[in-house]
Order: sequence, then C-alpha cells, then structure tokens
Amino acid sequence: MAVYTEIDETQLNALLQRYELGCALSVKGIAEGVENSNYLLGTETGSYILTLYERRVKRDDLPYFLGLMDHLAAKGLACPTPIHDRDGNLLNEVAGRPCAIISFLNGVWPKKPTAKQCQELGAATARLHLAGKDFPLHRPNALSVDGWAKLVADCEARADSVMPGLAHDIAREYDALKAAWPETPGRAGDRPLPHGVIHADLFPDNVFFIGETFSGLIDFYFACNDYFAYEVAINLNAWCFEADGAFNVTKARALLSGYESVRPLTDGEVHTLPLFARGAALRFLLTRLYDWLNQVPGALVKPKDPLEYWKKLKFHRQVLGASAYGIER
Amino acid sequence: MAVYTEIDETQLNALLQRYELGCALSVKGIAEGVENSNYLLGTETGSYILTLYERRVKRDDLPYFLGLMDHLAAKGLACPTPIHDRDGNLLNEVAGRPCAIISFLNGVWPKKPTAKQCQELGAATARLHLAGKDFPLHRPNALSVDGWAKLVADCEARADSVMPGLAHDIAREYDALKAAWPETPGRAGDRPLPHGVIHADLFPDNVFFIGETFSGLIDFYFACNDYFAYEVAINLNAWCFEADGAFNVTKARALLSGYESVRPLTDGEVHTLPLFARGAALRFLLTRLYDWLNQVPGALVKPKDPLEYWKKLKFHRQVLGASAYGIER
Repeated sequence: MAVYTEIDETQLNALLQRYELGCALSVKGIAEGVENSNYLLGTETGSYILTLYERRVKRDDLPYFLGLMDHLAAKGLACPTPIHDRDGNLLNEVAGRPCAIISFLNGVWPKKPTAKQCQELGAATARLHLAGKDFPLHRPNALSVDGWAKLVADCEARADSVMPGLAHDIAREYDALKAAWPETPGRAGDRPLPHGVIHADLFPDNVFFIGETFSGLIDFYFACNDYFAYEVAINLNAWCFEADGAFNVTKARALLSGYESVRPLTDGEVHTLPLFARGAALRFLLTRLYDWLNQVPGALVKPKDPLEYWKKLKFHRQVLGASAYGIER
Repeated sequence: MAVYTEIDETQLNALLQRYELGCALSVKGIAEGVENSNYLLGTETGSYILTLYERRVKRDDLPYFLGLMDHLAAKGLACPTPIHDRDGNLLNEVAGRPCAIISFLNGVWPKKPTAKQCQELGAATARLHLAGKDFPLHRPNALSVDGWAKLVADCEARADSVMPGLAHDIAREYDALKAAWPETPGRAGDRPLPHGVIHADLFPDNVFFIGETFSGLIDFYFACNDYFAYEVAINLNAWCFEADGAFNVTKARALLSGYESVRPLTDGEVHTLPLFARGAALRFLLTRLYDWLNQVPGALVKPKDPLEYWKKLKFHRQVLGASAYGIER
C-alpha cells in the first residue's frame, strides 16, 4: 500500500493547467502499487491515473515506459494511454517528482485466476509481443542473468538466515543457469530465439478482467527487451501455481494455448521453457530475498515470502521437458 | 493510509448481486482514511465507495451513521448517500466485515484552506445542524467530558514522556473544563444551549471543494448528538490555525459569518465559544496523545503530533472572549 508523495490542490491545479483535461473533480490516493505514488484523478473530461515516480524508478527509463504504453495503445492493445500535455509531453513534474497522467482502465485483477483467465492472459501476452515489434526504443533487462549476479552476491551472507543451505543452493543454481542461458538477444549468433519488448511483470495484479474477460494490462515499469519465451515462463510461475504450491497443468495448458492462438511458439522456444521457468523463478526468488533481508523499518509494503519462489524453482528443476507445462512439440 | 481487509472478486460479485448497481468494472483500495477500509468501486451504473468497517467502529453505531447520511442526503445536504440493497438494507457484510456502499462525492479536500473555504465550511456546518433536526436516532458523544476522563487516566503515567509537566497540565485543564461545562444536552435544566446532530470531525480532509466552492461533507463516523456551538469550536481548531501555530482571525471570522448566514448563534452560544474551543482542543490533544503513546508496531497510519493541540489549547486559554474569534455580541 503506497502513497509516498502528497500533493496539494495548488500543485495539482498547476499541473492540470498544462493539460487539456479540465478541472480536478476528485483525487484519491490508491493503496495498491509498490514502487510509485498513484492517484485516481477525476476531471471534467473523465477518469485518469496520476503517477508520481519515486526513487526506485530511474528517470532515464521513463521515456521508454511511457513511449511504450503510447505505442501499444496506438496499436490497439488494451493498456493505459499516457496523456500528452498541450506541448506534447508525456512526462511532467509535480511536488518535486517526475509524473505522468494516464488514462483509466476498467477492470479488476483476479485474486484467484481461473483457467479461462490464464488463457486470456496468454493471448494478451502474445498480442503485446506482436504489438511491440516496431517500438523503436531499447532497454536491456536489468533483472536477467547479469543482474542476478549482483543480487546473489548481496544476499549470500544472510540467505541462510531465511533457510539453512539457501546461499549454497542459490549459487549453484545461478551457475547452472548462467552456463545454459542463451546469448543475450541482439548479441547472439545465428538463429537467436524470438525476442522483443516484454512486460516482464505480468502478475495477476497487473492484468485486468471484467468478469472472466480480459480488459487490459497495466504497470509497464519493468518492461524491457528480452526473449518472448522468457515472459511466457514468468507467466507460468505467476499464474499456474495454486496457493498450496501445486502446479496446475490445466492452467498452464490454457495459458500456452491462449498464447499460441495469437503467436505460435517455435520449437526452440518450447524446448527452452523449462530453463526459462527456472530462471524466472530464480529472478523472483532473488528480488524477494533481497527485499526480505533489507526491510526498511516503518515501510508501507510488507515483503513477500521469498521461499514461495524457491519451491517453484524446485518444481521446474525436476521437470523432464515442456510437456510438464502441457505443451508437446 | 489504510486498506485493512482485502476482498476477492468472488466476494465482491456476491455482494454486488444484492444491489441493483450492475457488474463491477473496477475496484481500487483508497489510501486515505484511518478507521476503515475504503474501496473506490466502479460499476455499470456509476462510481461508489465501498466501506468495510474495521474493529474500531462499533457495529451497533452503524445504523445511526448510515441512517444519518441517508437522512441528510434526503434533506438536500451534499454528502454521500448510502445505497439501499434490493431488500432495502443499508448495511451488508463482506469478507467477515460489516460494509456499506455509498455514492461517490466529487470534490477535493483543501490541504491549505482559504478564508473563502472557511466561510463555505461554516455555512455547510449550519445547514448540517438544521438538516439533522428531525433525525430520530440519538447517539451521545463518547468523546465529550465523560469520555475524556478515561483518556486522561490512560495517558497519565506516560504523558510526561511527550513533554515534561504535560500530565499535570492535562489533569488541571480537565478539572477546569469539567466544572465549567454545561449540563449534558437533554439532561439539562431550562434553556439549554441549542443542540442536535453534529458531525464532530469536520477537519479539512472531510470537507470537499471544487475549486473554492463547497461540494460536500464525508465521513460521518464520529457523528453524535451534542451542542451545535461545540462543533463550531471544533471547526475553529481544525481550520483557523496556520501551520506555524498562529491563529488566523480572518479565517475564524469567515467561518463564523458563514455559519451565521444560515443559522445565527444565540448569545449563549457566542459566550460559550472560548470554553468549547478549549474543550475541543483538549479532546483532540487526548486522542492524539493516546494514539501516540499506544503506537502499534507496523501500523499503517502514522500518529499525529499531540502537542499541536496543546499549543491550540494554550491559545484558547488566554482569550478574553469570543471577540478573539472575530465575533462580537
């Protein structure tokens, strides 16, 4: 739950005068969201989200994120559209913070996703991958293999306080994944795996539905360029495990068939899924472990259990191939 | 900032089926609000606030609060209207909590109120007092003199940790106010001061404006029956001191003239204002001090500085009469 930066009506009115949105009719801080301060803003022309970017978001990355939302919305993907101000800018400043006003997207995120919703999420992910193909900016994935090295090192000394032996297991897993991971896209030799813009954080709280029907994707602040199949592997981790830790292969099959209904996976992508699923599990294990070991007293956000992703990682390590996810090739 | 109880889509849909509001299109936890969990709810028929009542609100008081909002809205006062379900109920239950759905009220609360806004607040307070006259339920003010006694006792042992001598000063102030306070309304002898329904918490965050124009009152969860002039005295405390502690008599004059433009104060009320202003300052000093001394580790809400109200109390103690507030009689 998070509103880190307060704004007063003078600041809000000065900001709104830069736009053609009319006067403020209401403004409410939203409790969801971890990284930034978000306000639901009602004006004479409609409903919007006003986001103030806090310290964890690099200012230099904002043109990529906002430009991408603008690009994807123009391509017809259901996602928030950043509003251009009178001078055409997507990015402004309020209360000493970079900020943007984006369109409000209807929908509710599923606390308990159904197989039908997994199918819709799969299809939406593939539409995102296609819609991003001609987006001209490039942002490497800071949380891929190279980024994990620093997290492994930062967590090493205290990882065993969470679970005895965890530091050693993580180091071993990291070494194995680093050795097996395909070349960075772009730097690769011939026939690299398909790659492009990915959202990189398509957890249920970033995917909206009305009933069981997909209504849109939000929160593009981890978006980057990486393998499409790696995003699919993140989604398998985020959507297809039950609360008790069991892997629900029906949901996985639905997710993958939804994806392939829009963009069929290549044989290479299918074969790489177990590796990518391990990598995705390690990535969320590492960031959760880091946040767990570095809790800020009085923080508004409670850190999530890192061991949830340790268990998911163990599952992916024992699969014999992509058929474990309900896909044959 | 506060959302204490999470609800999932199954619970939300089951709740909405009791109403004639259509399907949920969006639901967002609101960061504002201290006592309850509040969600901004969009449905096919409009925008609403879904409030889940948490432990600090007594369930037995909810018919008073909700019935009052219903009554006041029907009288034309700008305030949220509780929505009746298909069976006519204002109160329901979700996620194990009592809850209500109320209409969404446009407006922004003023972080830095102007004299014009103080005038509008005064007039709205008087309209509230008139509109509540024939409301049939009765709720004594739990935070009037009798209620203070318990807070004084609870804070006594540790008050000096906040400021040396504070416990003694509070005890002395409490004794003085208890001796001078008029009889409880209803129990009084002849010619009691005018009394009826008061909001009892008309701080700026509960009063909405669009620009400088009043748009409505929210958050009736301290409403009770007490002296009208005591509410006016609370408002003087909440609206007319500057951030540096200075009392702004221009704002006080605006507030009182706004009130009297709708309902003139009696001579008795005017003469009692300094006493009531001291009482109101002590009331907020005591509740803030209690919350300060009883902070819950990991609480989502940061307690407010109790000494702000100690300084206000000192101001009211040295005034020579209501003329200090810009009103002569």
